[in-house]
Amino acid sequence: MDLQAILDGIAQDAAQQADRGHVASYIPELACIDPGHFGIAVALPNGQIHAAGDATTPFSIQSISKVFTLSLALGRIGDGLWSRVGREPSGSRFNSIVQLEAEHGRPRNPFINAGALVVTDALMAGREPKTVLTETLTTLHSLCGHDQIFMNAAVATSEKQTGHTNRALAEFMKAHGNLNSPVDLVTDTYFHHCAIEMTCRDLAKAALAFVGAPGCPQLISPTRIRRLNALMLTCGHYDASGDFAFRVGFPGKSGVGGGIMAVIPGRAAVAVWSPGLNAVGNSKLGTEALEQLVQATGWSVFG
Amino acid sequence: MDLQAILDGIAQDAAQQADRGHVASYIPELACIDPGHFGIAVALPNGQIHAAGDATTPFSIQSISKVFTLSLALGRIGDGLWSRVGREPSGSRFNSIVQLEAEHGRPRNPFINAGALVVTDALMAGREPKTVLTETLTTLHSLCGHDQIFMNAAVATSEKQTGHTNRALAEFMKAHGNLNSPVDLVTDTYFHHCAIEMTCRDLAKAALAFVGAPGCPQLISPTRIRRLNALMLTCGHYDASGDFAFRVGFPGKSGVGGGIMAVIPGRAAVAVWSPGLNAVGNSKLGTEALEQLVQATGWSVFG
Amino acid sequence: MDLQAILDGIAQDAAQQADRGHVASYIPELACIDPGHFGIAVALPNGQIHAAGDATTPFSIQSISKVFTLSLALGRIGDGLWSRVGREPSGSRFNSIVQLEAEHGRPRNPFINAGALVVTDALMAGREPKTVLTETLTTLHSLCGHDQIFMNAAVATSEKQTGHTNRALAEFMKAHGNLNSPVDLVTDTYFHHCAIEMTCRDLAKAALAFVGAPGCPQLISPTRIRRLNALMLTCGHYDASGDFAFRVGFPGKSGVGGGIMAVIPGRAAVAVWSPGLNAVGNSKLGTEALEQLVQATGWSVFG
Amino acid sequence: MDLQAILDGIAQDAAQQADRGHVASYIPELACIDPGHFGIAVALPNGQIHAAGDATTPFSIQSISKVFTLSLALGRIGDGLWSRVGREPSGSRFNSIVQLEAEHGRPRNPFINAGALVVTDALMAGREPKTVLTETLTTLHSLCGHDQIFMNAAVATSEKQTGHTNRALAEFMKAHGNLNSPVDLVTDTYFHHCAIEMTCRDLAKAALAFVGAPGCPQLISPTRIRRLNALMLTCGHYDASGDFAFRVGFPGKSGVGGGIMAVIPGRAAVAVWSPGLNAVGNSKLGTEALEQLVQATGWSVFG
Repeated sequence: MDLQAILDGIAQDAAQQADRGHVASYIPELACIDPGHFGIAVALPNGQIHAAGDATTPFSIQSISKVFTLSLALGRIGDGLWSRVGREPSGSRFNSIVQLEAEHGRPRNPFINAGALVVTDALMAGREPKTVLTETLTTLHSLCGHDQIFMNAAVATSEKQTGHTNRALAEFMKAHGNLNSPVDLVTDTYFHHCAIEMTCRDLAKAALAFVGAPGCPQLISPTRIRRLNALMLTCGHYDASGDFAFRVGFPGKSGVGGGIMAVIPGRAAVAVWSPGLNAVGNSKLGTEALEQLVQATGWSVFG
Repeated sequence: MDLQAILDGIAQDAAQQADRGHVASYIPELACIDPGHFGIAVALPNGQIHAAGDATTPFSIQSISKVFTLSLALGRIGDGLWSRVGREPSGSRFNSIVQLEAEHGRPRNPFINAGALVVTDALMAGREPKTVLTETLTTLHSLCGHDQIFMNAAVATSEKQTGHTNRALAEFMKAHGNLNSPVDLVTDTYFHHCAIEMTCRDLAKAALAFVGAPGCPQLISPTRIRRLNALMLTCGHYDASGDFAFRVGFPGKSGVGGGIMAVIPGRAAVAVWSPGLNAVGNSKLGTEALEQLVQATGWSVFG
Repeated sequence: MDLQAILDGIAQDAAQQADRGHVASYIPELACIDPGHFGIAVALPNGQIHAAGDATTPFSIQSISKVFTLSLALGRIGDGLWSRVGREPSGSRFNSIVQLEAEHGRPRNPFINAGALVVTDALMAGREPKTVLTETLTTLHSLCGHDQIFMNAAVATSEKQTGHTNRALAEFMKAHGNLNSPVDLVTDTYFHHCAIEMTCRDLAKAALAFVGAPGCPQLISPTRIRRLNALMLTCGHYDASGDFAFRVGFPGKSGVGGGIMAVIPGRAAVAVWSPGLNAVGNSKLGTEALEQLVQATGWSVFG
Repeated sequence: MDLQAILDGIAQDAAQQADRGHVASYIPELACIDPGHFGIAVALPNGQIHAAGDATTPFSIQSISKVFTLSLALGRIGDGLWSRVGREPSGSRFNSIVQLEAEHGRPRNPFINAGALVVTDALMAGREPKTVLTETLTTLHSLCGHDQIFMNAAVATSEKQTGHTNRALAEFMKAHGNLNSPVDLVTDTYFHHCAIEMTCRDLAKAALAFVGAPGCPQLISPTRIRRLNALMLTCGHYDASGDFAFRVGFPGKSGVGGGIMAVIPGRAAVAVWSPGLNAVGNSKLGTEALEQLVQATGWSVFG
């Protein structure tokens, strides 16, 4: 299997796609991204990285950051975290508040916005936003082997200005006693870790932490790796998680910036980026690229 | 790895469990099953079967039958089936009607009751219940290599007498034009295929059809196998599917009779049976046994 | 106040209306009604009836029948009925099943379909459909002073053939133990009492039973009259009840056949009929006519 | 009819009641109110006021203030207000956010918290909180004929500190573009007008503005009076509005401070206060007192 040739083919196909989805428009910083971008990178446990397209252009990882904050929060708090957030697919949109009311402020899973806010609050554990954000960035620096990974302050500020739904979720959970730090500090921290920018190469490299093969960086225990992958598979794409599992067949986490991080357990980590989103809010060409990768490589957790 | 020793250990542990959950009580035929039963079987692609406990006692497979009717329906109709039923976890109980109203009679996935009723209707395609039930049994006979697999008429009759919720779901979908055959024929067929009885040994053997390794029976294509496993992982345990993926980590389908069929892609098929259910309606000892099996074998699709 | 002149004016205005709404189309018997019809009648406690338009043409009273069956059921069972059905506006469509799941099979009020099915079951109290239907018709005959009021068998049969949603509601309540008679008998009775046909003159005359003034027929006690009027005001127009109260300001009950029965407590009873429905399923010109009547007469329970 | 004797009897009965409900406990200022209080006052269009019990003790009117802010907002904006808030009973709790998501940030009616926040925002129309609060107080001063009506700053501050659910509602509506002023200013204004304190005598006198008889103060037009009364009847007691209409039978608005303001159109205005609430959050003895008043006087809008 010539992985590089496969990635080159995927990138070429992507370059010719006319229908690239729609770039997220709710804040100016994301809306002005050129939808023509496409990058893909595969990191192998032996250290090799294969990439094609715009794999060295930083993009806003947005919700993909939730996987890293969850890893850090589990390391800090342990399984006690699960008393505050569930592990079930929500069957609802990423920012739905409906389930939260019926279930008394306990979000269904850590990847919908409400759940990620609880995880951020748990990771804060009373600490300052700055401390937590530094810890998150330092972790990524360590996984990627360099410190050229930053948060985009303009994106974070824009998110803050328009983040009424996220504040509604946070206030609602605060009302139910499921948020310890002040709402403003939690949402601020959340907006900032979502504003981290990474390249496909770096993101694939960092995702090796969840591949669980010899040679991969050890961020969390093998048991936690398996569980995190299970969560990504069942909940990583909001209310399209089932469809992603059906079509692509391995764990992944998407972000509204057009990135998708995927894990092929024991084998490889993948990062793909194309800013245009499909109707359910996941990268259109990114999802299609992962389907192509599955067909070309036979990679799937399902046989 | 001494698989037989692992299964023996699991069966011994199960025999000593005091808290065995609660046997389904909604029909007399299921309520009178001795909760002391426990059986487990693992079928390997090479034809070997390892088993322990009550692995040769037939039990009511109930919702596990939905995997086989789905396989047959996909073979008959193809991917057009997905216009009538979704592929997303529901986030609701197995018999919830709420989502059905919001989504105009199209069930979230083929494993909740509403979805399985649509699949049964699709498989009928205007044919008589008897024809469809014979086709289903014949398929199981063929997979198991003998014809000693039957439907329990008393169970089916009881289900019919008490099946008001299922009829409500069927009538509701009929109202939305998502059921072709008459409601009574569809529910009748459904109650009967749920009343099929199998042993752990037979169920494990039949489940090899979804393992996708050389030597396994070929019921559906490799692509369909992967997709069916993805569906079982994301939707196979109703509103506890996420938890099952988190704790066990491979595709499975549970039934209210206390059985669970599980698939370790490329490696093995598992059937476990213990009639007592946990709070979310899945076999309590069965789920725990699969967790033990994961820990002892390292089997997981997630690394 | 020249009531006859007011009604004549209303009927003339209605005759000239181009936008008459849409006739209910779900069964052929209702769909083929000429939308050009318009009739209105006001019955006074002194026995006088003023009418205009097609006030002597029988139409399908549909859900208006629910007020009479509720009156009879209260007479038979008393306030114990309220343990089986609530008294709150539903905030949902007339045939919604969502609330029913959350509230375990107890409908919000007796005028949504689910609630009316429970009332019909309560009125049956184990008796045959024929007995109950005869009792209902006899009551109307008595109120109107003649026996030329009938059920339209073709309408009832069509309702039965297409009544999947109503059967879904009934099966769902049966599953929750809130239906005593068999589902088929309850829905059959329900479809038949909804298929009663009355003229505006007769309906207004029958509605005097809820006006509560000297000279009015005594079907239920003064306290029950007040309560029934309260129910009609808060729940009589499904999820447009608030709007009807806001715009018209007195108790009323609409039917999908285009009829509306309204009560001006202590003063008069009104029946209006125009087959075309507005977006929320109430008679378009009928509602507008009642608004005109309010403005011309000053009748309102609200000052 | 000796109204004074009726009120004296009601107050005596209330004084002897052992089960007085539970005082609202979510903020200390309300929790420490003595549940032994009971007051009632009836204001007649001729200027007479009859009262009994603690009718001159100020209490926190809370949600009752929503009727006055709605009146002022309608005066300022007119019927355009209804594009931002509905007129239907919600069928949900006073602080539910569920309906808001399904209906894109447009609250069902102006008396649930979300709706009242929109009304407050509309009344602000970009003005400062202080301006709006002064306008509200001045209106009450004018209606009552003196200026000894104040806001309780401690109550407002406590509400602000614990008002996470209300902020969640406001943020959610802001996200849907249905709030013009900043969330903090709107909630601040809302918390303050809810913290107005009035006596039963004053509240009854102010409520004459909605009675619509000669001699009553003219705050809004006769048509608006009728409509406001319709809204109070269908939506004034949250998800117990239907029950209040059924049992009491005239328009009313309750507050969590234990007050209820009621309107007998054309006849009288009533204020009753007893701090203990029933299970649905309305004054227990207050509701019972109004039922007694209905029985003794025959007052009802329903005949």
